[in-house]
Amino acid sequence: MGSIIRIPKPVYILSAATVAGQHEKNGPLGEYFDIIGDKDDTFGCDTWEKTESEMQRLALSRALNYAALRDTDLEAILAGDLLNQCAGSCYGLVSFDAPFLGLFGACSTAAEALLLSALLCSAHINRCAAVSSSHNASAERQFRYPLEYGGQRAPTAQWTVTGAGAFILTSIQDDLIKSSYSKGAVPTISEVLIGKSLDAGIKDANNMGAAMAPAAADTLLRYFKESSLLPSDFDMILTGDLGFEGSNILCDLTAAKGLDISSVHCDGGLIIYDRTGQDKHAGGSGCGCSAVVLAAQVLRAIRTGQITNMLFVGTGALMNPTVIQQGGTIPGIAHLVRITSDPTS
Amino acid sequence: MGSIIRIPKPVYILSAATVAGQHEKNGPLGEYFDIIGDKDDTFGCDTWEKTESEMQRLALSRALNYAALRDTDLEAILAGDLLNQCAGSCYGLVSFDAPFLGLFGACSTAAEALLLSALLCSAHINRCAAVSSSHNASAERQFRYPLEYGGQRAPTAQWTVTGAGAFILTSIQDDLIKSSYSKGAVPTISEVLIGKSLDAGIKDANNMGAAMAPAAADTLLRYFKESSLLPSDFDMILTGDLGFEGSNILCDLTAAKGLDISSVHCDGGLIIYDRTGQDKHAGGSGCGCSAVVLAAQVLRAIRTGQITNMLFVGTGALMNPTVIQQGGTIPGIAHLVRITSDPTS
Repeated sequence: MGSIIRIPKPVYILSAATVAGQHEKNGPLGEYFDIIGDKDDTFGCDTWEKTESEMQRLALSRALNYAALRDTDLEAILAGDLLNQCAGSCYGLVSFDAPFLGLFGACSTAAEALLLSALLCSAHINRCAAVSSSHNASAERQFRYPLEYGGQRAPTAQWTVTGAGAFILTSIQDDLIKSSYSKGAVPTISEVLIGKSLDAGIKDANNMGAAMAPAAADTLLRYFKESSLLPSDFDMILTGDLGFEGSNILCDLTAAKGLDISSVHCDGGLIIYDRTGQDKHAGGSGCGCSAVVLAAQVLRAIRTGQITNMLFVGTGALMNPTVIQQGGTIPGIAHLVRITSDPTS
Repeated sequence: MGSIIRIPKPVYILSAATVAGQHEKNGPLGEYFDIIGDKDDTFGCDTWEKTESEMQRLALSRALNYAALRDTDLEAILAGDLLNQCAGSCYGLVSFDAPFLGLFGACSTAAEALLLSALLCSAHINRCAAVSSSHNASAERQFRYPLEYGGQRAPTAQWTVTGAGAFILTSIQDDLIKSSYSKGAVPTISEVLIGKSLDAGIKDANNMGAAMAPAAADTLLRYFKESSLLPSDFDMILTGDLGFEGSNILCDLTAAKGLDISSVHCDGGLIIYDRTGQDKHAGGSGCGCSAVVLAAQVLRAIRTGQITNMLFVGTGALMNPTVIQQGGTIPGIAHLVRITSDPTS
């Protein structure tokens, strides 16, 4: 089982806000981020855990501000990040007076949070927030090596993005009137497909793309088979974040099954940094990458009418460093969220 | 905001299965567990990560067996555990052919998974599984000290339970006919209340009960205020897992607000071990504790008619060991699930 779930009533992305670091500011999307950190990406904090928590707090505060809502208007916050025990979310969002649901989906967390938020807002509650983050310094230390070690990076390695994204979702149409964000078309979640975790046997902690691509292919193949739609029916299929290595594998895997996505495929990890000007090897990754690319660039394109119908496929490598040291493999997962322009608003 | 969510159509707990270790087998509930580990609690694996993963796999396999269902009948698996990156769930459940949603709620994970499962099954899908686990050896190593270190335990310390619990939920009444588990009354989720994370300033990693009790009090006070019900309307209020220290604090905190829960309150951490015969200090804890107590004892009591109406309040300490070493505090959370006997089945 595992079918496309059609969202029974419109759930609007009322607002979104992004927080990013210096490398991200210097990339192609730099001008679109809402809040940029200080020069050392500490956000004024004395530990990386506090930094990432602060980034989540800033992102959600700004998104609430754009939506003209307060924390007490939220009926749930769904959040997660890459830190052990999701410390960025658990510590960063504790000051908000709202129910909290912690998620773990590795780099697929933004998609998982949007997916569950859309399901909840279409049936049980009216408004919620989806928040996720990653920080290069905290993630590299935890999953690979501390930055101070100066380890040489493999060509397949992706660069963990320093970024946090927050989205406010609502099923109340009147909310759209007050929001300063929703001038233009309103991004609306119309379908979701929950990913299956897949273990393709990848053991290389420096090749996340290869671990995630089979899951992304599985999700997309299931989606197009069930929906009978074609890639050309969409303006964009945004994966996040497979990077250079994983994007190529994804396109090969889907093509081998007769599904050619190459003309509309775009990967968050490939567009957040300059492939030639910034030394980021296989591209960006991290819970924050797909969140800030979606929020800063893609939703903006929906609001201005450049994109009216797209698929966001959030990909995650469910990697535990201890298991990797034991010689274990890295399962991957990919959750799909279909976002359209709401024609009625 | 943050109100009681009434589940719009009955969601049945179709089956549940438990896996437990030797200490749990030797406790008061020992005879009720479905699968007991080998003498060293390794479950035949050569690392604790593999052990805990295997426990989740066994629990879900057995629960599916009881429900007379296969993995492909599930439209989602919602799961989490205490290991970094939820390794027990991510690795333990990858072999099941079903959509997967990873959760992080620390020891509240069983409640969070049941809560979200009930919401999804009442509106968007028909069947799903909720799975959680903990293992004494993996958790103590990760959060405090490796067992081999032999550190002296504080009187307020709780003992991480070696256990995994899996629940199969369905909204299809016909499923009840096939399930071997559902002879007798059928446990049915009728209401949920999502917890708010609260930071009471506790910094002691050996006093989880004190960190969680304020969140449990907040959730219960919100529930009884909104519902206008009384504790005496319920056969049981099961918290899990506050242990001795946290249970006393919870009863004091609620009593101070005029809510006396003492006559119906029961804590999973207090009943899983023998307070006098087993040297477990403040009682049990861990994602597996509330899961196995609920599955093995409380749902059994519902099926036999001893309990017809109860509240399950899953409590979690959202603790990150690195943050604790930095002098940080421990936020707590508590999710509420109301379980009744379905009168129609």
